[in-house]
Amino acid sequence: MFEAAELGRKISREEFDALAPSLRTDLLDLQQQLRQADFPVIIVFAGVDGAGKNESVNLINEWLDPRWIMTRAYGSPSDEEAERPHFWRFWRDLPPKGKIGLFLSSWYHDPLIDRVHGHISTVEFDQSLLPIIRFEKTLADEGALILKFWMHLSRPAQKKRLKSLEKNPLTAWQVTDTDWKHYELYDKFVAAAERMIMQTSKGHASWRIVEGADSRYRSAIVLQTIKEAITAHLAARTAARKVDAELKDAARGKDEDATAPAALPPQPSILSSLDMTQDVDSAAYTQALQEQRARLAHLYRAAIEAKLSTILVFEGWDAAGKGGAIRRLTNALNARDYQAIPIAAPTEEERAQHYLWRFWRHVARAGRVTVFDRSWYGRVLVERVEGFCSEEAWRRAYGEINDFEEQLTRHGIVLCKFWLHITSEEQLARFKARGEIDYKKWKLTDEDWRNRGKWSEYEQAVNDMVERTSTHNAPWTLVAANSKSFARVKVMHTVADALEQALERLERHKKGN
Amino acid sequence: MFEAAELGRKISREEFDALAPSLRTDLLDLQQQLRQADFPVIIVFAGVDGAGKNESVNLINEWLDPRWIMTRAYGSPSDEEAERPHFWRFWRDLPPKGKIGLFLSSWYHDPLIDRVHGHISTVEFDQSLLPIIRFEKTLADEGALILKFWMHLSRPAQKKRLKSLEKNPLTAWQVTDTDWKHYELYDKFVAAAERMIMQTSKGHASWRIVEGADSRYRSAIVLQTIKEAITAHLAARTAARKVDAELKDAARGKDEDATAPAALPPQPSILSSLDMTQDVDSAAYTQALQEQRARLAHLYRAAIEAKLSTILVFEGWDAAGKGGAIRRLTNALNARDYQAIPIAAPTEEERAQHYLWRFWRHVARAGRVTVFDRSWYGRVLVERVEGFCSEEAWRRAYGEINDFEEQLTRHGIVLCKFWLHITSEEQLARFKARGEIDYKKWKLTDEDWRNRGKWSEYEQAVNDMVERTSTHNAPWTLVAANSKSFARVKVMHTVADALEQALERLERHKKGN
Repeated sequence: MFEAAELGRKISREEFDALAPSLRTDLLDLQQQLRQADFPVIIVFAGVDGAGKNESVNLINEWLDPRWIMTRAYGSPSDEEAERPHFWRFWRDLPPKGKIGLFLSSWYHDPLIDRVHGHISTVEFDQSLLPIIRFEKTLADEGALILKFWMHLSRPAQKKRLKSLEKNPLTAWQVTDTDWKHYELYDKFVAAAERMIMQTSKGHASWRIVEGADSRYRSAIVLQTIKEAITAHLAARTAARKVDAELKDAARGKDEDATAPAALPPQPSILSSLDMTQDVDSAAYTQALQEQRARLAHLYRAAIEAKLSTILVFEGWDAAGKGGAIRRLTNALNARDYQAIPIAAPTEEERAQHYLWRFWRHVARAGRVTVFDRSWYGRVLVERVEGFCSEEAWRRAYGEINDFEEQLTRHGIVLCKFWLHITSEEQLARFKARGEIDYKKWKLTDEDWRNRGKWSEYEQAVNDMVERTSTHNAPWTLVAANSKSFARVKVMHTVADALEQALERLERHKKGN
Repeated sequence: MFEAAELGRKISREEFDALAPSLRTDLLDLQQQLRQADFPVIIVFAGVDGAGKNESVNLINEWLDPRWIMTRAYGSPSDEEAERPHFWRFWRDLPPKGKIGLFLSSWYHDPLIDRVHGHISTVEFDQSLLPIIRFEKTLADEGALILKFWMHLSRPAQKKRLKSLEKNPLTAWQVTDTDWKHYELYDKFVAAAERMIMQTSKGHASWRIVEGADSRYRSAIVLQTIKEAITAHLAARTAARKVDAELKDAARGKDEDATAPAALPPQPSILSSLDMTQDVDSAAYTQALQEQRARLAHLYRAAIEAKLSTILVFEGWDAAGKGGAIRRLTNALNARDYQAIPIAAPTEEERAQHYLWRFWRHVARAGRVTVFDRSWYGRVLVERVEGFCSEEAWRRAYGEINDFEEQLTRHGIVLCKFWLHITSEEQLARFKARGEIDYKKWKLTDEDWRNRGKWSEYEQAVNDMVERTSTHNAPWTLVAANSKSFARVKVMHTVADALEQALERLERHKKGN
């Protein structure tokens, strides 16, 4: 794979100087265009030591306007990072739309080094690349331009470089024992890299292998590649937007003209299978609430002790009683130990990022409980029904969400997701009641009535959502909520059960070790 | 001080139940009004263990809508927190406008506990309260409503509480050795608390002492106090806005009618004392640049090693060459080790916070270099000249900025501030030149020309700024920048000198120990 990067390609100073001014001007100009664009540029540098990773990043910062560049390099995770899923640190550093992010020692670093040192097998290595592939796919699907450079140096070139650094008294300090140790591992390193590059080169995020021995040659290649890629991506995004607009126009025309398609007779849905008569009488409710509260109070303290985090997701019809259920649940917790995150319209900083970014940023430190009042499922509910995102986007979201949740649960986080279900009649009754209680009036907005008008579309969306995102590690709990009492107890019971099981698993795991 | 909180005041269940519904409705209603308000509410809970700090916070979360409440409690700092000035962790947790932030074990915790355990003397204790006073003043001056509750319990009541918890098998686990140890320290604790409360009770952030023995009484007092304070603050802010608007109208009217006031003859300014003919010839420039670059490259690596952070602030006239100077400087650094932060208009999330918040968020971890391309000085430059903030606000800002910078330098951060100065003629020449170079055209905006029209107002603002914010630990360096070469070398030289001195200080300090 690396033969073509060991040909000793170079560029003379004259050639480089002839090329540089216009290349630089073009890049600065592109950066200005990019500032208005609806995507970020993510550039990963990896490769053999001494092949020019750092130098390339420095050069980009020098030639381009550093105000719209973010450079990130990673060492050992901080304790705040270590307490969260592995990719949290990368998510929080993603460049917003219009900016360029340069990544050194990025998400490729750990798997590669673990493989080279033999800490993981080939199979585990392949496995560890899958989250990377999904991460990049998720970003690219939302429009990100991803460029990955593998800076290469042949084994003899590497040796020559270390020797010549050592010889010069001014640079000798740069060569450490670690460098020679790395050199000893050269063959393993290159073999692992080859496998990694093969597995993670995708159309939307392919590796470019750059011969790194000659600094002028590699600089020219890297900068030229960046220029071409940004130019092409800007053009492609513009074209895509045009096509989208045309398709939308065409669809609108069709909608108006079309006669209603022959509809299938209504089919039983997941929601319709819920027994909506489930209830609990007042005395039993009080008792159950107290019991579950005591259980939860005990279990979540044990969870804090065990550094076990919990994430709770609440979705449901307007007026289904999400707020009330959340309040009953959090009553069992100390306010200092949980965060309730209301999800409304994204802020400006959030809009400039991938739609999952604003949920990643709320993933809390070890042992905390985070309650999402509405969540990332907005993508496949309101955004789908209201047409706030394209069909392609919300269809893709199921997989992205599954992947996000898998990262949470794989990190050991307890994840419970609730859909609070009420019948249409019950919702109407509650809307009317809200209008009559002074301090609840603000809760009822025109939007609630508008949403109600789209009941069947939402019903379809909920069914699809449950079907596609109820997974073994992150199942949906559908809660019949016509009876608020029943719903509240059911929610608390479910969370307590989940915590109990997770704690037992931890306990078994400890004993097993 | 606490006698009035040891009277055994209580409320019966009936009295409480009679009070509760309307109090709760009022609070929910206030929360809705608050959502539209232009200030955050910051509520601190401190006091004797068992006097109801946690319970009060829980109750507020229960009664109010938790979606607009943020609860924060603090343990030992994470490594990311420990690497920054002490108040960084509190700044990053501040509620935005329209929300309520509840703080447990807040900024009062460490000084109080250190004093109780005798780790600091009374004098040191008083000293440690000064940054707290300034912190709260800074927030209150920008409109924040600050409420502080001291929950009190008499010594006998404390003992009784621990005994009764121990007796009940269901609650015995709550009483630990630490609790009894704290009880032994009761007198010291209360004495220190009294001193703290006296020193830190200010009109804009006064302590309310609450007798905590009876849970109904304390709940009623806390919630009633919060209700009254928010109501009063909403009214005061509305009134203040009205007065402001009237004053502005009046001022506008006056401006139009007024004849020009008799002006003093022009006085020499700090800027006019700069020798603007300073220059360096091309050969000397190349040599000096190389020398300083090598020096910097060496020094900043030593600084990383020593975990010494550097913050560089660049201000200056439009076209004074800030970007060029920054680029020459960062060329000496590895891109992975520094961040360039361009300061333009604040984002929506930033606008919802105190104006210093967006700079606090960029304070980097230990050993990093952060370059601010424009900075917090916008407050006393563009915001002052353009009238984006009130005169009272920018006048106050000098002190707030001095305090902010003192926190940075006290934490050991090396802080250099540069004003790049050019003459009005030089600026005109550069504007014209920019218009002629293709890839620089975007740099020249209408705003640049508008700013140029206010040269003398900006000059006055710069003079005031330097006069008031050039401090021993954070001095301004005024750079004569008509010669770009001279300015670049001077900047690099200054940063290198500052690093060198800081490293020497560290070295001396190490030897001293």
